[in-house]
Amino acid sequence: MKLFKQVAIVGTGLVGGSLALAIKKKRLAGEVVGVSRHRRSIWLAKKRGAIDRGSQELDIIKDADLVVLSMPVGAIMELSPKIARIIKKDCLVTDVGSTKAAIVARLEKCFKNYLGSHPLAGSEKRGIANAGAGLFKDSLCILTPTGKTPKRVLRKMELFWQALGAKTSVIDPAAHDKALSFTSHLPHVAAFSLIDTVPSGFAKLSSTGLRDTTRIAASDSELWSEIFLSNAGALIRAIDGYIKNLRRTRSALKSRDKRALTRILARAKEKRTRLL
Amino acid sequence: MKLFKQVAIVGTGLVGGSLALAIKKKRLAGEVVGVSRHRRSIWLAKKRGAIDRGSQELDIIKDADLVVLSMPVGAIMELSPKIARIIKKDCLVTDVGSTKAAIVARLEKCFKNYLGSHPLAGSEKRGIANAGAGLFKDSLCILTPTGKTPKRVLRKMELFWQALGAKTSVIDPAAHDKALSFTSHLPHVAAFSLIDTVPSGFAKLSSTGLRDTTRIAASDSELWSEIFLSNAGALIRAIDGYIKNLRRTRSALKSRDKRALTRILARAKEKRTRLL
Repeated sequence: MKLFKQVAIVGTGLVGGSLALAIKKKRLAGEVVGVSRHRRSIWLAKKRGAIDRGSQELDIIKDADLVVLSMPVGAIMELSPKIARIIKKDCLVTDVGSTKAAIVARLEKCFKNYLGSHPLAGSEKRGIANAGAGLFKDSLCILTPTGKTPKRVLRKMELFWQALGAKTSVIDPAAHDKALSFTSHLPHVAAFSLIDTVPSGFAKLSSTGLRDTTRIAASDSELWSEIFLSNAGALIRAIDGYIKNLRRTRSALKSRDKRALTRILARAKEKRTRLL
Repeated sequence: MKLFKQVAIVGTGLVGGSLALAIKKKRLAGEVVGVSRHRRSIWLAKKRGAIDRGSQELDIIKDADLVVLSMPVGAIMELSPKIARIIKKDCLVTDVGSTKAAIVARLEKCFKNYLGSHPLAGSEKRGIANAGAGLFKDSLCILTPTGKTPKRVLRKMELFWQALGAKTSVIDPAAHDKALSFTSHLPHVAAFSLIDTVPSGFAKLSSTGLRDTTRIAASDSELWSEIFLSNAGALIRAIDGYIKNLRRTRSALKSRDKRALTRILARAKEKRTRLL
């Protein structure tokens, strides 16, 4: 089902590259063009059949009907005014940034037909080399319209993400950032801090527990530093809640209170089991 | 390769049941007998071919050449004196408890031919129904001999675990508990506390990051409460180190210090990458 004549992916990394591959596979666009700072990424995206044409220059996106901004938060913020001057008047624009309030506020000013997207799909790995057309299958894509978002833009983008195999969920940008501070940013902070706490010499005496719990600590530090900072307020409150819970467990341990400890763990286990 | 005429598994749950299945599969014993408090667990262990005979009474282990204690820490402590009165004089005894210092100190007093084992293999799931002969393949089994451990017991148990597909590592009980407080017990505390921190309404806006990071929070609360308490001192110190690291991240966030934040995450990422 062709939804767009031409889709432009700005940032052909893991998410952008996977998007391009999935769009080609599902034939959602007549043509896919890609932009990357890295010549090699363009070369590989072409080789893998993710894009038809690619460039290190933004001019290549001038005829696109949909532009997907798939760069780190900082780059999205920085390049948007320039992109706004290049694209067609009726071009749809979305981004795949992991935080939404700041990005949406800024991008709404740049683009008339804009909607924030956050596909909850990714990996601790990076780059087009690790991309795959199946990345969005059975995933959740959160869409964050505001009062300014044209209805037809929301409808078209819902169709787009659903065509890629994702379920869509609509929520406002601030609520998104609060929820994700707990469900994504805090787990990353927890994982980074956890592996940092394990003395290096002990790491070999570990198993799948430590490995799974810290998998996402192999994520890119620059990228996540930007994500954390773009949601600092909510994330600080989430960290405070986490430390409070850790202290509660510590206190039950300290007083050797088996009943209290078991109650804490049982409640957590029940919550985790419901998560599935 | 037959290593024992008869092996007795006391506690035919996930680990004990998997051990029994693996022993049968590798033909390491002429006969495997099992003990469980639960009639159904014995029935299922027999049905799955894990044990030849089973009983709810300990008397069934009286002719065993190797007894494996595969119960929670508390039950191991409680039943050992009774088991010592039942078994043959030259019977080898091991346990698969997740902490070692307290167990080893106690069991060395009960048994002449004892060695503490800790196979780093398991799952958040429980019971013989989830057991499998492959559980120990490519895993690590930590052995914790002391000055009192007969050399031939250590050698035989190394052969035993290696025959099950595990690598073995020898370390003293106190060092084991200190290392595992960081590599196993702290990750469990981190996971339990993390899922407990996520407001229930937000859980649906989550992805593989939260799921992987909290997988082990689906572990049995009673079992882990006992493990935590049996290593409380070391675990409290590990939690303190963890909270300190979380506070460091919080502080970099609070002061919007991107360089400091990225440095923290980069160091963690490097450690995680070395872990594989």
